[in-house]
Amino acid sequence: MPLLVVGSVAIDNVETPQESRENLLGGSATHFSFAASFFTSTRLVGVVGADWPKEHTELLNSRGVDTSGLCTVADGKTFTWTGRYHDNMNDRDTLDVQLNVFGDFDPVLPESYRRAKFVFLANGVPAVQAKVLDQVPGRKLAVADTMDLWINTAREDLDQLLKQLDGLVLNDSEAKLLTGTENLALAGHLVRDMGPKFVIIKKGEHGAMFFSEHETYVLPAFPTEQVIDPTGAGDSFAGGMMGYLAEQDNFEPKTLKTAMAYGTLVASFNVEGFGLERMKQITREDIEKRMTAYRKMLSF
Amino acid sequence: MPLLVVGSVAIDNVETPQESRENLLGGSATHFSFAASFFTSTRLVGVVGADWPKEHTELLNSRGVDTSGLCTVADGKTFTWTGRYHDNMNDRDTLDVQLNVFGDFDPVLPESYRRAKFVFLANGVPAVQAKVLDQVPGRKLAVADTMDLWINTAREDLDQLLKQLDGLVLNDSEAKLLTGTENLALAGHLVRDMGPKFVIIKKGEHGAMFFSEHETYVLPAFPTEQVIDPTGAGDSFAGGMMGYLAEQDNFEPKTLKTAMAYGTLVASFNVEGFGLERMKQITREDIEKRMTAYRKMLSF
Repeated sequence: MPLLVVGSVAIDNVETPQESRENLLGGSATHFSFAASFFTSTRLVGVVGADWPKEHTELLNSRGVDTSGLCTVADGKTFTWTGRYHDNMNDRDTLDVQLNVFGDFDPVLPESYRRAKFVFLANGVPAVQAKVLDQVPGRKLAVADTMDLWINTAREDLDQLLKQLDGLVLNDSEAKLLTGTENLALAGHLVRDMGPKFVIIKKGEHGAMFFSEHETYVLPAFPTEQVIDPTGAGDSFAGGMMGYLAEQDNFEPKTLKTAMAYGTLVASFNVEGFGLERMKQITREDIEKRMTAYRKMLSF
Repeated sequence: MPLLVVGSVAIDNVETPQESRENLLGGSATHFSFAASFFTSTRLVGVVGADWPKEHTELLNSRGVDTSGLCTVADGKTFTWTGRYHDNMNDRDTLDVQLNVFGDFDPVLPESYRRAKFVFLANGVPAVQAKVLDQVPGRKLAVADTMDLWINTAREDLDQLLKQLDGLVLNDSEAKLLTGTENLALAGHLVRDMGPKFVIIKKGEHGAMFFSEHETYVLPAFPTEQVIDPTGAGDSFAGGMMGYLAEQDNFEPKTLKTAMAYGTLVASFNVEGFGLERMKQITREDIEKRMTAYRKMLSF
């Protein structure tokens, strides 16, 4: 079952305490669709400028990502993000953001995309996310990500959006900001009260928590000694999760939990290299091997 | 199989954003032995002053804790700790510490204690922890806790102690301090290289990580919406874990993992009330019920 993702496509410049890299293929929709590609094909909606290297698109296509919804603005430049990670490889400073063509992003879905059943709205302006939803009226599952910026500056639009979502994925600090509580086990349910049928709180190296009406659970991250670049880990998590749900073509509680585990594992590979470097090296078989180790880790 | 614990017995004064409580029964050996009491009897070694309320000792005795190793200094006062938790219920400021009789604590084990097979050295001066070990030469399993103070001020003694331990339990910030790395998956193995056969890194609300020669795993904390007072959570974790190991009378890898899960669950009860309030309400059956939910949470 094909999956639709709408989000940023970007060029990233990343500094870590060990190393720096420039001109990495980045952006939420990119990390998401690459992660999902181990499970299903993805239809990507995004925008780039004339400077966008053709080989990036080719790479995505080689992974079965449909880029007919990737719009190129001939007289524009691609969104670029430059960031520096702290020693803990979790906190980071944004050194520079050039929104460029992404600043006016007004996604219009190709006709073939509008019949999508599984929809992921990567982090973006809530009003724009809502406009995307209007274009996929026959969807079965709509999940979105958000961030502190929209919680602080577009709360009304975000509140409206939340009422239309099946699921919301956000990180721990965002969940605390949105609900005003420091207790994540409580925050998850408070966010759920705002509309989404389920809520997933991402805790980075500490894993992720799931909240639905009848279930609350936590799955830990897969421990890896090799954290090279955490950029895109959250989007890879979402991509692995949504990719598996689309592959299974259902979102029963049992499937959702397994999907969260797949998201966790795909994200654990994503952080083992800059940009998509590590992801390009792995296969579904590598993910399944790690899944076997993960299941063993959690059984006693 | 009885369990030996050597550590602090204290009076705690605790402030949280919601409430304050004074004169709580506290201390590492207290939280440890109460937590262990759901699984086995514990022989406690500690020191108190003339001000120590008799009913605290009676409470411990009622839980099967042998307090014949609890020494009362007639002209002394009991160790007191006063602390204030931040909004996140994780970070805290120590407002006041009165070591009192605990400052000269030089534990001499009663004869009947010296045949103990399972030994836990709660956080304390490493040289004193080592002296305790000398008094239980026939031990099968020795596990210790430590803290930043000793890492910073008694490193040589700590290094010596580490070589004599089967297991070390420490929290995430201490593991980072001890090894100089921010990656916990790496830090655990680096601590293990210092001597202990296994290392457990406690991550508070994020669970705990285990490291042995052949295994690395993470178990998440049990999500609870009701965090009233985290004081003693780490000692309750250790008490639940060591109590289960002593009950099973083995420390095979499989038993160790189950023991870590029990420690996690006992700690999740401990934080649901001030001091030992919540712990006094529960039974082994409550722990088993939570274990069933925890196993279900981790299976998919």
